[in-house]
Amino acid sequence: MEHSRTSTPVTSADIEHFAGLGIGAVHEAKQLEASYNVDVFGKYHGDAQDVLFPKSTQQVSEILAHCNQRGIGVVVQGGNSGVAGGAIAHRGEVILSLRDMNKVRDLDAISGVLVAEGGCVLEDLDNLVRHDGFIMPVDLGAKKQCMIGGNVSTCAGGLRYLRYGSLRGSVLGLEVVLPDGRILDSLFTLKKDASGYDVKQLFIGAEGTLGVVTAVAVALAPKPRSSQVAVLGLQNFARIQRAFVLARQTLGEIVSAFEFWEKRCTELVIEHEKRDCPLKSTHEFYVLIETRGSFLRHDVEKMDAFLNLLQEHEVVDELRVFRDAEDMENIWLFRSLMAEAHAKSGCMHVYDFSLPSKSQYELLVAVKSHLEAAGLYGKPGMLVSDVTIFGHIGDDNIHLQVIASEFGRLVEESMEPWVYEWVGGHGGSIAAEHGLGAHKGQFLKYAKSPVVIETMKALKQLLDPNNIMNPGKHISRA
Amino acid sequence: MEHSRTSTPVTSADIEHFAGLGIGAVHEAKQLEASYNVDVFGKYHGDAQDVLFPKSTQQVSEILAHCNQRGIGVVVQGGNSGVAGGAIAHRGEVILSLRDMNKVRDLDAISGVLVAEGGCVLEDLDNLVRHDGFIMPVDLGAKKQCMIGGNVSTCAGGLRYLRYGSLRGSVLGLEVVLPDGRILDSLFTLKKDASGYDVKQLFIGAEGTLGVVTAVAVALAPKPRSSQVAVLGLQNFARIQRAFVLARQTLGEIVSAFEFWEKRCTELVIEHEKRDCPLKSTHEFYVLIETRGSFLRHDVEKMDAFLNLLQEHEVVDELRVFRDAEDMENIWLFRSLMAEAHAKSGCMHVYDFSLPSKSQYELLVAVKSHLEAAGLYGKPGMLVSDVTIFGHIGDDNIHLQVIASEFGRLVEESMEPWVYEWVGGHGGSIAAEHGLGAHKGQFLKYAKSPVVIETMKALKQLLDPNNIMNPGKHISRA
Repeated sequence: MEHSRTSTPVTSADIEHFAGLGIGAVHEAKQLEASYNVDVFGKYHGDAQDVLFPKSTQQVSEILAHCNQRGIGVVVQGGNSGVAGGAIAHRGEVILSLRDMNKVRDLDAISGVLVAEGGCVLEDLDNLVRHDGFIMPVDLGAKKQCMIGGNVSTCAGGLRYLRYGSLRGSVLGLEVVLPDGRILDSLFTLKKDASGYDVKQLFIGAEGTLGVVTAVAVALAPKPRSSQVAVLGLQNFARIQRAFVLARQTLGEIVSAFEFWEKRCTELVIEHEKRDCPLKSTHEFYVLIETRGSFLRHDVEKMDAFLNLLQEHEVVDELRVFRDAEDMENIWLFRSLMAEAHAKSGCMHVYDFSLPSKSQYELLVAVKSHLEAAGLYGKPGMLVSDVTIFGHIGDDNIHLQVIASEFGRLVEESMEPWVYEWVGGHGGSIAAEHGLGAHKGQFLKYAKSPVVIETMKALKQLLDPNNIMNPGKHISRA
Repeated sequence: MEHSRTSTPVTSADIEHFAGLGIGAVHEAKQLEASYNVDVFGKYHGDAQDVLFPKSTQQVSEILAHCNQRGIGVVVQGGNSGVAGGAIAHRGEVILSLRDMNKVRDLDAISGVLVAEGGCVLEDLDNLVRHDGFIMPVDLGAKKQCMIGGNVSTCAGGLRYLRYGSLRGSVLGLEVVLPDGRILDSLFTLKKDASGYDVKQLFIGAEGTLGVVTAVAVALAPKPRSSQVAVLGLQNFARIQRAFVLARQTLGEIVSAFEFWEKRCTELVIEHEKRDCPLKSTHEFYVLIETRGSFLRHDVEKMDAFLNLLQEHEVVDELRVFRDAEDMENIWLFRSLMAEAHAKSGCMHVYDFSLPSKSQYELLVAVKSHLEAAGLYGKPGMLVSDVTIFGHIGDDNIHLQVIASEFGRLVEESMEPWVYEWVGGHGGSIAAEHGLGAHKGQFLKYAKSPVVIETMKALKQLLDPNNIMNPGKHISRA
């Protein structure tokens, strides 16, 4: 059976039905346009006419049962901080917002397991669990806005993946409402389970195409007792990799983040966010290394040994270490504002790839040449003003930004599918942590084998036979 | 469509077909009985008449395509060290042994990623990667026998789960032959991927019911530069939990294992394995704590602080710390021989549960009372001689052994479903790391919700519609 390609339009009878169930809603065009029909960087514009705000799993179930029966498309929206268009309606679907599903159901301060509803904001959860000596095992630039249900649905990676690993390991259980309204209660709260297929894994990273993640059980990480940040200035990308190897050797188990960015990223943050650079001189590349440990004196000794080694081996041109909480916060803010600064400098096309370390810088060079050859980049006044990379060393994950003076189709037509083919050809992933979203599904074939794609499609067909969940996005486009 | 409950018998024409494909085989009854038709502890006896030894993914594909077309059941066997009967044929299926699929396809010493075929023995892989400064992220008592394909297929947990986490995080990619013979190439070797559903997760822990895991890409862990082991003697279970909390606080990020066992386990190892106890006095409970770090002096200082704290708080009655490699190896051997020592002392019924820490000791008490009330335990000459627990603190995982003078049905009839209902009622898992195997599927309903079980069955039906893979086991019994 082929998936239906259109959604049934929402009628006033449907709206009355939802109102009769006591479900909050917004239908006002201006409000929709300002908050729900546009993504965080203004690239994706939606056409939903209705946003629903269920307050309970039961209400989510009633919404989906009705939509499934009527064939109405549903787009789930958490904090709407996604950058791949996955939470934007583009065929008149109803938006199901998790905003009012924001209760913390349980926090076990002994085992360190949190059970929270999908609409809880990540930063709020992190603040809460810190009182009991824990932290959330995921941290993102968007933490003030993004919600844990969305984090799970995009399999968010973020800033400390290197230390705390994938949400596939930290998420112990999920409560999911299936497209037909059935409630899949898989809210297990213990570490190990090998009894049957791990059904919850299907919904981690499914971007709302298989159901609605209404609650999450997460294994928290212990709050570190000591923390330090070092910032390095380096001449070339090869030295970043050299520094990473030395960090693994000397900092060992206390490394918690190893971020890099290039000169232009620093300039954009200084210009558009009015922040000071953490280093005095200008460098081709910058690295932010964080350690988190349980004993400051030991961690300081390890950090000093590492920094000495970097200088002995002439890996860095400048380095500074920060141990004051406010300093460290400012440096993280500098790093976290990078995407925003790019977006303020023009129309940002963001790409998010996994690549073997040897291919990461090579990609930047290839993209610049490609856009130059297309006559779009390299001279003043051309459509593309900047091409930059920054990312997470050790996670194999880089973000590539192409900044243009207008969105239009020209950049996409030049870049795609060329860049996806390049990444697939180098053994990479075309979506490392941002997800497939609205339009990357069509390029999946450049990186995944046909049998894998067939299996994904069969899973979608099995769980959402009426194709109501985020229709026309993600794997439906593959 | 209902699953067919019987497998087509293997005929001489089938055998000739496999021989024609150049696939090695054993059909000799005595050899089958000695090696392939009995599990490691002699509890499960099989009736396979044929074992096939494919040498390539292509040959596995040819076997499955043929069996799928003919409706012949297939039981996949790795090292045959499973204890839940999952790798034993019990309805005349053909056994597909991974023994000859034992090539290492790639080892990237920079990124620390290993690609190995499913039949590689875990210990061999660990020895291999140590040359390049890495270790396997999973370690089991059965490491000399078990194979990586089986580790993945049972989602093996093991001794250092506390440090290295679940295989769901360490396995980056899989190559799987689907029941119809299609090869699902998902051998990704990078850390992050959020492009579509994570199809490989379905096969992790599927116990050979959805296909054959022919190759695995694993993210290795760095080889520790320093290691220590402490053994504690304690008076009661509550003190184990107290010691665990103190260990997390003082040892922090260097804790790599926290194992416990009770007095009777020590006695059985001394008696049946002729090993010396690591402590001088006899205690109700024992704990083995291991640290792994990158700087011995720091680790020693942390360990000493921890041990002092234990003494100050009067948590332990005796403690010893070991830093010599041979000593540490001997202690790990003592711990690893525990299951074997139990099996030598009688007919071992082993249960493998996840339970909240507060319910773990409570279970032991409940089981003893239950068996006493049934007249099976508590007096000399009764059927059950021993009921013991040991396990992995911090993983929520305990192993419960019921040792009887004969296998028979009496122990099972008394224990089951009672114990599964008890565990499910306390929020636990009925199979934490051993898998559902041959007969636990029927008890899944005590711990999983109906919608979860329905979804598992739908996944089985989707991927193995002819029900040829390990028929009549696992979720098929639910």
